[in-house]
Amino acid sequence: MTAEHDAAADREQAVTDEVLASFDRTADPRLREVMQSLVHHLHSFAREVRLTEAEWERAIAFLTRAGHLTDDRRQEFILLSDVLGLSMLAVAINETRAPGATEATVFGPFFVDGAPEIPLGGDLAHGAAGTPCHVSGQVRSADGSPLPDVRLDVWGADEDGFYDVQYPGDRSAGRGWLRTGPDGTYRFWTVLPTPYPIPHDGPVGDLLAAAGRGPMRPAHLHFKATAPGHRPLITHVFVAGDPYLGCDAVFGVKDSLVVAVDHHTAGTAPDGSHAQGAWTSMAFDLVLVPDAAG
Amino acid sequence: MTAEHDAAADREQAVTDEVLASFDRTADPRLREVMQSLVHHLHSFAREVRLTEAEWERAIAFLTRAGHLTDDRRQEFILLSDVLGLSMLAVAINETRAPGATEATVFGPFFVDGAPEIPLGGDLAHGAAGTPCHVSGQVRSADGSPLPDVRLDVWGADEDGFYDVQYPGDRSAGRGWLRTGPDGTYRFWTVLPTPYPIPHDGPVGDLLAAAGRGPMRPAHLHFKATAPGHRPLITHVFVAGDPYLGCDAVFGVKDSLVVAVDHHTAGTAPDGSHAQGAWTSMAFDLVLVPDAAG
Repeated sequence: MTAEHDAAADREQAVTDEVLASFDRTADPRLREVMQSLVHHLHSFAREVRLTEAEWERAIAFLTRAGHLTDDRRQEFILLSDVLGLSMLAVAINETRAPGATEATVFGPFFVDGAPEIPLGGDLAHGAAGTPCHVSGQVRSADGSPLPDVRLDVWGADEDGFYDVQYPGDRSAGRGWLRTGPDGTYRFWTVLPTPYPIPHDGPVGDLLAAAGRGPMRPAHLHFKATAPGHRPLITHVFVAGDPYLGCDAVFGVKDSLVVAVDHHTAGTAPDGSHAQGAWTSMAFDLVLVPDAAG
Repeated sequence: MTAEHDAAADREQAVTDEVLASFDRTADPRLREVMQSLVHHLHSFAREVRLTEAEWERAIAFLTRAGHLTDDRRQEFILLSDVLGLSMLAVAINETRAPGATEATVFGPFFVDGAPEIPLGGDLAHGAAGTPCHVSGQVRSADGSPLPDVRLDVWGADEDGFYDVQYPGDRSAGRGWLRTGPDGTYRFWTVLPTPYPIPHDGPVGDLLAAAGRGPMRPAHLHFKATAPGHRPLITHVFVAGDPYLGCDAVFGVKDSLVVAVDHHTAGTAPDGSHAQGAWTSMAFDLVLVPDAAG
């Protein structure tokens, strides 16, 4: 049996060696490195689990179904990367850390180009349902200096846990962008985010269910900060006390990104508006890393 | 720098550990094993190459494009598995070898259900263009005993290198199935296979081009043999002398599967037919492995 086993292992290794060699003439050295590493690890996986042909067929069917679900509004491959933790790992690999800098987290599948610009202090809810939430803070560089004119893209789900792109029609709601003022501060209105399930009516949802994993993400707002001379920052602010902070379906939570939300009854909001009903507020500073760092 | 490097490695490992743990409660132990191994190797790959976010985006775009190309007639994910050698590795992992048994090779993306049955000695070309080719042989068990009534599914490309499903319309041509006779022998007509490129107008083709790899497969006929009490066999017969035997885009060639083709001028074919023009013939025996083996 040992000789047979060795012969089988040799035959399997011969396949891997032939495939690795087939990438030897890749013109771009980085592509060659990536593809040869991918082949090495993909083959190691298949050998380690002794992948059956029925399992291979399931994998092909899974990818096919994911591909057919994916369109301009639904990105099942990003969800797959998210629930396998590849997205957060890529964040960790690429993040340049600097003392005090704001941590990054997953981009997610719900960003869309073409969101409206709003003025400083404006409202990006644009009809999204939910409790008004006033969000404010300051954007600084790692040395503490305020950063004016930073573009902040913000997007979030409504009180039912859905982004605008998950509704029929082309309405843009709960998303927009603004620029920080001369002192690096920003403020805007939106709706208070709530926990929501990632889209789980597709193959990724089936995988989560089979794994006994929930599809929920704790409440959060997405931020993308773009400032000259600094690394772009993609992150969230999470709502303190959310029951799903410990079991985010996409592994995106970092303690430093969790902030308290203040709840207010009718009264005077910071800008004098929204005084007719309950509203909320949260404060979130962002510290960016200069390009030269790291 | 070493302390920083260690801290970064710890943060990356923490992501992987959290994802691995998220599969701990998977009810099916085999699914748990497969998913945890997949996460382990996928993360090892991303860390080894220091996957950039731009590369991650390219991967998502690649899979999205592959998904949108895939339909009932085009299977880009199988092509991807094929050119990464995963399909041939799965064959190697799952193949039960027995002395003298016919080797297996890739299934490929061109099998379709519902091909017509033909009588022993019949013609499965059904209008496929090419030089007539008479294929014959015997199907035996590993102990040498002939196997009657074995179902043989056969499919192949025409002289232009295309399978029927690559043409518009629903014509079935160059494919069919028959059963071996009482003495285990079989014979049928088809058209002589020619080398052809795998479909390379999609992301898999772009990958091959970037890698300096050709899309060609050496000429072959596909066989699937199904016999009671035996392992199903999926294999090809390759045409000796083909210029692409050494660089099959999907790594499917095995020396034992290469056979000589005899070329004949007009004359009497084995069954007395097709005497008006040039024709060819090839002989290919198949030896199946009993279920009990291995």
